[in-house]
Amino acid sequence: MYVYEEIVDGRKLSEIINSEHENVKYLPGKKLPDNIIADPDLIRSAINADILVFVVPHSFVSGICKTLKGTINPKAIAISLIKGFNELPNGGIELISDVIHHSLGIDVSVLMGANLAKEVADEKFCETTIGCKCSAQGAILKDLFQTDNFRVTVVPDRHTVEICGALKNIVACAAGFSDGLSLGDNTKAAVIRIGLKEMIRFCKTFYPEGLQESTFFESCGLADLITTCYGGRNRLVSEAFVRTEKSVEELETEMLKGQKLQGYQTCNEVIQMLEHEGCVDRFPLFLAVYLIYKREIPAQKLIEYLRKEPEND
Amino acid sequence: MYVYEEIVDGRKLSEIINSEHENVKYLPGKKLPDNIIADPDLIRSAINADILVFVVPHSFVSGICKTLKGTINPKAIAISLIKGFNELPNGGIELISDVIHHSLGIDVSVLMGANLAKEVADEKFCETTIGCKCSAQGAILKDLFQTDNFRVTVVPDRHTVEICGALKNIVACAAGFSDGLSLGDNTKAAVIRIGLKEMIRFCKTFYPEGLQESTFFESCGLADLITTCYGGRNRLVSEAFVRTEKSVEELETEMLKGQKLQGYQTCNEVIQMLEHEGCVDRFPLFLAVYLIYKREIPAQKLIEYLRKEPEND
Repeated sequence: MYVYEEIVDGRKLSEIINSEHENVKYLPGKKLPDNIIADPDLIRSAINADILVFVVPHSFVSGICKTLKGTINPKAIAISLIKGFNELPNGGIELISDVIHHSLGIDVSVLMGANLAKEVADEKFCETTIGCKCSAQGAILKDLFQTDNFRVTVVPDRHTVEICGALKNIVACAAGFSDGLSLGDNTKAAVIRIGLKEMIRFCKTFYPEGLQESTFFESCGLADLITTCYGGRNRLVSEAFVRTEKSVEELETEMLKGQKLQGYQTCNEVIQMLEHEGCVDRFPLFLAVYLIYKREIPAQKLIEYLRKEPEND
Repeated sequence: MYVYEEIVDGRKLSEIINSEHENVKYLPGKKLPDNIIADPDLIRSAINADILVFVVPHSFVSGICKTLKGTINPKAIAISLIKGFNELPNGGIELISDVIHHSLGIDVSVLMGANLAKEVADEKFCETTIGCKCSAQGAILKDLFQTDNFRVTVVPDRHTVEICGALKNIVACAAGFSDGLSLGDNTKAAVIRIGLKEMIRFCKTFYPEGLQESTFFESCGLADLITTCYGGRNRLVSEAFVRTEKSVEELETEMLKGQKLQGYQTCNEVIQMLEHEGCVDRFPLFLAVYLIYKREIPAQKLIEYLRKEPEND
């Protein structure tokens, strides 16, 4: 397992993981199996792999792929757990799985779902969705990940699965605004529903190939959206954004230990792209999140944007 | 407006409503418009109506229809807001809208959605779904109900809309068990997702005519399910059922002022019917709710039943 080397309490993180079998920085208190070996050398950790599992912040993906290029097993396959889009210089976006696929020339599947790491580590029951074009590969990946308490469903339209994982964070920002304004349960339900409709509309408009509506009923769709809109960090920070006068940057420092607010980042990428494509009007909830975070409209205007939702689309 | 006459603080409820324009028993603190007149005489209140709106506990529907039969305008149409099923003597079930339709011989639509009465009365933004076979009637009903803060979508498959309204309460019981057992966010999301899958499977199996999968993305489907599983009374009582040793009846007395627990009632009706049809195995979550409430299995077994969920169905 490649680990970006950090110094924690004066020791190298990889050494701590290999001696204590615990990632004390990112998953403290959970013992890792003995056969997991942390390696700060990216090429060495990937060179013999048959299956490459990508789990890094999305801004690191391009660099990692550049380093790996030409060194990996050409028959290897990849699976990405990364949520987000790669912004293109022309205002468009690229899916992370496509970045990996284009850089390394290998097949890439995705894994998304309502699976908070801590609860997975506690072996609480949860579900996940693997998006994989090839059914034989899908069966291998399912075998690899499934346990009694981690139930895997494989679906063929990996783009839908991946896009759900990214866009849900925008909807969670809107849900957080609704909570911050104390708009009540009915309104929050409407926000989540309208948000899901926009997620579906986005997939149908820009990634229609192979899309199955049933994928939105999988863990990567509905279930992940619900947990994110009730329990996630995007919701929490967005609630605080409405209740306080603080800026996104201040809240990131205070509430996310300086990490970026994913929903806000994704929203910026998506709105750039929708403006570039000339169809931002068909996504009033996404637009409202963008404008509220830019303080171009007050949060109270969220309702006005919900009313603009295209009905039959 | 027909009102079942009750004595509240020594006065007739209909008189209080007509003098104070407030239903002090069921919606205290909210002023009703002056043009709403409460009438304890059922026939008199319905005889001149062009549109009959049914909002009563579902066990009263048959009796009310018997009284109205032959007295109403034969061109009247009806709309039902009632959640539940009518149990048939042979173990089957009948939709409430069908009970009204068969009793009175008039067209019946349904209205369901994430709309808690108190928040609607507060004019907070929410959505609702009308299921109506005839698009001309649908337009009239939309006009009648829609306001700036109460957004109506009309869909043609009224059976799906109505069944969502009833079955969501069973899923909310399972969500409450999950909360009572402190199973965490991942598991609760899995429960809601699997519950929705069973709702869809139920509709597809028993009421396939005119079913559109998109109806489950309307307020009556997804949105109402979410609010019920997070905020509703079925969830609350089911959580208490797991945390205490109390019986359903005790909890109904303590927590629902003696009202019946809807999800439990509906679950009994549905399981009788599924056993009668020989396909209870295809609905493991519904079955688990039934068995847990009967104390035939411990609540902890819920997970085991979730694992039995048919995957591609």
